[in-house]
Order: sequence, then structure tokens, then C-alpha cells
Amino acid sequence: MIKIAVMGYGVVGSGTVEVFYKNLDNIEKKIGDKIDIKYILDLRDFSDSPYKDKFIKDFNIILNDPEISVVAEVIGGLNPAYQYVKSLLEKGKSVVTSNKELVAEKGAELIKTAREKNVNFFFEASVGGGIPIIRPLHHCLSANEINEIAGILNGTTNYILTKMIDEGESFEAALTQAQKLGYAERDPSADVEGADACRKICILASLAFGKHVYPSSVHTEGITGIAAEDIQYCKDFGGAVKLIGWASRKGNNAAVMVCPAFIAASSQLSSVNDVFNAILVRGDATGDVIFYGKGAGKLPTASAVVSDIIMAAKMDSNSKSLYWNDSDKSFVLDRKSLENKFYLRLICKDKNEILGAAEKMWGKVKILHRDNENENEIAFITDKVNEGRFDEDCAVIAEKAQIKGKIRVLDY
Amino acid sequence: MIKIAVMGYGVVGSGTVEVFYKNLDNIEKKIGDKIDIKYILDLRDFSDSPYKDKFIKDFNIILNDPEISVVAEVIGGLNPAYQYVKSLLEKGKSVVTSNKELVAEKGAELIKTAREKNVNFFFEASVGGGIPIIRPLHHCLSANEINEIAGILNGTTNYILTKMIDEGESFEAALTQAQKLGYAERDPSADVEGADACRKICILASLAFGKHVYPSSVHTEGITGIAAEDIQYCKDFGGAVKLIGWASRKGNNAAVMVCPAFIAASSQLSSVNDVFNAILVRGDATGDVIFYGKGAGKLPTASAVVSDIIMAAKMDSNSKSLYWNDSDKSFVLDRKSLENKFYLRLICKDKNEILGAAEKMWGKVKILHRDNENENEIAFITDKVNEGRFDEDCAVIAEKAQIKGKIRVLDY
Repeated sequence: MIKIAVMGYGVVGSGTVEVFYKNLDNIEKKIGDKIDIKYILDLRDFSDSPYKDKFIKDFNIILNDPEISVVAEVIGGLNPAYQYVKSLLEKGKSVVTSNKELVAEKGAELIKTAREKNVNFFFEASVGGGIPIIRPLHHCLSANEINEIAGILNGTTNYILTKMIDEGESFEAALTQAQKLGYAERDPSADVEGADACRKICILASLAFGKHVYPSSVHTEGITGIAAEDIQYCKDFGGAVKLIGWASRKGNNAAVMVCPAFIAASSQLSSVNDVFNAILVRGDATGDVIFYGKGAGKLPTASAVVSDIIMAAKMDSNSKSLYWNDSDKSFVLDRKSLENKFYLRLICKDKNEILGAAEKMWGKVKILHRDNENENEIAFITDKVNEGRFDEDCAVIAEKAQIKGKIRVLDY
Repeated sequence: MIKIAVMGYGVVGSGTVEVFYKNLDNIEKKIGDKIDIKYILDLRDFSDSPYKDKFIKDFNIILNDPEISVVAEVIGGLNPAYQYVKSLLEKGKSVVTSNKELVAEKGAELIKTAREKNVNFFFEASVGGGIPIIRPLHHCLSANEINEIAGILNGTTNYILTKMIDEGESFEAALTQAQKLGYAERDPSADVEGADACRKICILASLAFGKHVYPSSVHTEGITGIAAEDIQYCKDFGGAVKLIGWASRKGNNAAVMVCPAFIAASSQLSSVNDVFNAILVRGDATGDVIFYGKGAGKLPTASAVVSDIIMAAKMDSNSKSLYWNDSDKSFVLDRKSLENKFYLRLICKDKNEILGAAEKMWGKVKILHRDNENENEIAFITDKVNEGRFDEDCAVIAEKAQIKGKIRVLDY
């Protein structure tokens, strides 16, 4: 009999317990042993719960119970989750987690601890909710060099952008609607400013490239600056604005970024709408593979946690190869050294003057149009430009025009 | 040191050897041991190959060499692959295969033999080429009941349909083009008549439902009867014609079919074009998850074979839960007991008479139009109807009209 503990009884935690008991027969068949949840850790009272006898408030009970071999951490946030997980691994207990912040900030360290103690640290649920991605990516890696990953990794922002595209809504109106439907938090900043997507691309890039990519080294832009006008110009371009987390192998280094981007209609990512997520993985042997589904939600995420519990309970030998090394700051290239295409929207007095200046700096640009275009407005797409130099060039342009929109154009 | 053999040096076999040696460092790191290919079995001569010393023509050398613990079967076809694989498993050697016919026809038996001998039988490459699907589906199963699977499982037919849709080509013209590009074989029947897609949906359904689904029990229609006119009417419907392999849980039974179908534009499957494949898996906890990528090709398929070699070489404990039981004919429901929506295109003298008869039998229908519609032509979509009864009803209609197009309308 395997005894496990679940730490945290919020949305994902209660879902984990629900999915666990619903599928207990299957789970035991998969593991080849009996298994039960012995403790559920939560500071709140759940005296009406059918599992009320399992609730505890003291983490040390789990830590010091030698019967517990696997713990699911679904508290979220860095503290106290990090201290808890670290202590559990050091005690020789396997941990599975849905906590993207924990893995993005402390992954290399926790994986190392797990290897040293010969236990498992799994985190399928930390990216893409119920979409299987960590384990398939890990398997792909054995016969592929993964050169690119690009994903729509945050359902909240994708819902907002879809509303802006389909219904011409402003960012604010679309956000309010997302909040009403429960797709956005009252404080939506972690979603709309890109931090959530950033954590997820850090985890995927770390696994794909074998070196830890820290969120602090990733240039992250959210969608708060996207205007209805930008969406209109993107339609003329022929595609959709999406918040993309992307990572690209550059020799021994990596380029990693989170930013809104024009995505051409011919890309599978452009048709990923509403709260759906999609992750494109480009391997040298497989070519492009895309994983699509609901990237969040109680039961999808819980289903990924339970799958990890099963794998950890089996003490599967896989775990040893699911790892990456620590890295220093130089691993992720400075944004200013990268080259990208840009869309610019400008308000100016003399369109020809601006266009002349733009083409002098960036070569031929592709002009875009929209209905009811302001007569002082000009919008265009550049070819690939060095980002550092582009910043400086934009500062020159800004002396003669107001830059109202500036969005990358990505080829995924 | 682990010694393996590769049986078959055609497209997938030579790709397997190529991907294996290219990634050998990674592979050995994953396995935690040295590994090498000792034999390559092929009746042809490859005296110019850098691997010429490994080639053998006698299967018994592999079978009787106790050093060989894992064999990749990439010969294809049922014979002699089946006898070879069966003997190898009985000898206690693990086998990985890309052979969909073998798994679809003999899966339950070979899995059983592998379990009895405590070795592995893996077949990730048999469905979806380089798209990871067998293993993710297997993992999903632990915390989900999979109720539906629907996929575009054959790249050749999807290429042909895409040409017909995008360029208005006839089936014959699109097939000729596919053959010129090497996307279709000189004898294209296994692709265009649906047998290839049938084998793949059988494998996926067997895994998802835990009982073997035999190709002979699956109603299979290909795309040879699809006319340019049907494609045009589908545009008015708002979607695309796709060859879909689908499987649906029906209590303790299953409905499984391969057929061309109208797929609404709102479905992610409708935008899967050219030689790409996509597989939709509907779990009760995860919701809809889609796996997308190139479903064939030398390196993608080889990459899946190599991943399986690694898993098998690790003698991973997973393998025991990757199984299904044998079944009898009654497991897959008779097509005539199923309910589906149909599109019908008819040539008749009196459209009102036909429409009246149709609505009397099937209730209100949705009439479709196309440019340059023949004045004697009528096309419409029914609501869900019982297929057995629909056959009979169509026989009645056929007394008064020619049925030129009859395609299911599926909600995926």
C-alpha cells in the first residue's frame, strides 16, 4: 500500500482528490499496488468534506511520516511551497507539482535534489493544464534536437485577444468580460502582463535546451498595450494577434521571450482561440508538432497531477533523464542582440517624411491599412531588424511621430 | 552494453539507423548504458553502406543471439513481420515497431505474449509518425475516461482533399499530383480507400477502450467517391471535407468508423491541411486535447521508433500498463445501429417532391447551395438519423432521384 499526501485544497487540490478517487481502480491497476491519500494539508477548515478525517494543518506531519512516499504540491506560489518541496525531497519523498512559479524559479535546484535522493520530481501540470506536454517533450528529446518552442500559454490573455479580434472590443472591455466569466482574476496582472506565460516558456525551454532559463532573464511584454486599431491592422496583414512565449536555440545559447505578436493566418497558432492553449515544438527529426487543449481548469490540471502521482508512485526509472542543469545569466541572449520583424503604428504630421525615414533605416516596409484609418496614421511591417538598433531608431522616429503600436511579427 | 537489431532497411529502417547514430550520446545518457546496433536485417545488398558489416539476411541470427535484447521491426506488412515479432517476444526480446497493420491485426496477442515474457512491445511510430500519441494517450488514461477519439490519420488523403478544396481539383487530378510529389503510392488504394486510417483508429481505439478493435469490424469508406461538387457544397455548409477515423465509447461497446465527413469550420480539425495529421482525444477530465504534426515521413517516424528503442532498452516498468485485452466481434457496434447526420446530393426531376419525401422521412433538412448549381440538383443536410433506417430510406429516394453524394456530418 502506497500512502500519499496532497498539499493544498484549492481548485487544483480539490480536483486532484476528486480525480484520484474517481479513477482509483485504474490507478491501482497502472501502479500494480494499492494506493491511498493519507493526508490533505490546508489551513482552512473542511469539516463538511467527505475527506474530513484526512485534513491536517501541520506540514511536519507529512514530512515526518515515513509511510508517505509521494506528495502532490498544489498550493501554488513560491512560499512556503519551495521550502516544503525542498524538505520533502531531502527526506527522500517524491513530489509532483502543478506550481509553475516553483518550477520556473527553482526547477534546476529541485531536480538536482531529487536525483541526489533518488526520488522523483514531476511537474506535468505546471504547463498546459491537462495538455500532455512535459513528458512528450521529454520523450521527443531522445531522438530530436528541439530548436524552437512557441506557444499560446495563457488562456486568459488568449480569451481577451479573441474577444478583441472577433468583436472589436477594447482591451478593457474584453478584460471586464473575462473577469465576469471567471477567466481572469480580480487582479489580472500576472496574466495580462505576461508573467504566467513567462514561467511556462521558462519550464519548456529549460527542458528542451537542458539548461535552466530563469524568468528574470526573459524579456516579457503583456497585452495591456494592444489597441483595437492594432487588431484591425493585423487583419489586413492576414492573421491574428497572440501572446506568444517562444524559445529558440542559438548555438550554445537561447533566445527566450514573451510578447504579443502578429501571427500569419497560415500558422496553426493563429486559429487557437478563446481559453485554449497550443504549444508548437520544432524538432530536427519530427518537424513541427503541436499540442492543443484547455491550458487550465480544475479537472484538466488535476488530471495531469494524478498522472504524475502514478508515475512517481511507480518509482519509474524515467525520472532520471527528466532534468536540466543550472545556468548563469549569459545563457539567455540579451534581447538587444536578437533580430525580429516589427509592426509599427504611428501618428504623424507628414506620412511621407516618416515613411522615408523608416525605409532609410529599415529598408522596404509593408504598409497596412484599416477601415476609417486616421489621416495622420501610418502602419507598416519591417523586415528583420536588430532589436537594439531598432530601439535607437524608434527613438529617432519618436521625435517626429507618436509611436502608438509596436508589435513583433513572428513566423511560427 | 545493450545490443539491438533493426529489421528492414527501407525508408523507416534507414531513418531509424540514421537518427539512432546521430543522437547516440543523448540516447546513452537517457538509458544510462552503452547501446549499439549489432544487426540490420534486409534481403537486399547494401555493400556501399557505412553500416555494411551489420547487414544480415537470416532472421534466425537475431532470434538466436542472446546478446540482442531489443529489436526494431520496420519491415511493414503482416508477413513475415508477425512471425518474426511473435518469435522474438517468445524468446524474451523486446520489440518496437512502426507497423500499423501488425498492431491493428495482432496487437492484443503480441501485447499478451510480451507481458507473459516480461518484455516490452511498443508501437509509438505506428500512428501519427513523429507525433507523440500512443504514450500521451496511455498516460492520459490513468486519470481520464477517454470517450471519443477522432483524427485525420492519413496524410495522403488529406493532401488530396486539401487540393480539391483549395484549388477546385477533381479527385483524380489531385491524386495524380500527390503521386508526382511522392505523397501517394503508385497503387494508392490503401490510402484512398481508408485501410491505412482504419488500422490507425483501430490501434487508438484499442488502447483507449482497453479492448482490441479489429479492422474487419470497422466500417471503412475512402475518398474516391468525393466529387468537386460535394466540396463546393461543403463550403456553403461552412467547413471542410476530411477523412476521419473516429471511435466513440458506447457503454460497454464502441462505435468505430473511417469515413469522409463534413467538419465545421469551428473545429480545429477543419484547418488541418496538406499532409498534416491531427488527433483529437476527448477525456472526461482533460476535455479536448489535440495532437498535430506530420503523420508520416522518414525522420519523424524514425524518431518515434528510436524513442521506443530507448524506452524498451530501459526495461521501463511502464510497459505493463500499455495493454489491451482481446475482444469478440460484438464489441464494435454494427454501423446500422448508429446515428449520424448526413449530407446528400441528388439529381432529380422534381426537387419539391424529393424535398417533401426527404422531410417526411428525416424531418427538417438544411438546404445547401453552390455556384453554377445544376437546376436538377439538390443538396441538403439531415439531422441525426439511424444509419440502418437511412440506408432503407435512401433506397426509396433512389427510385426517384440519383444519389450523387452521401457524406456524414460529424461534430468534432
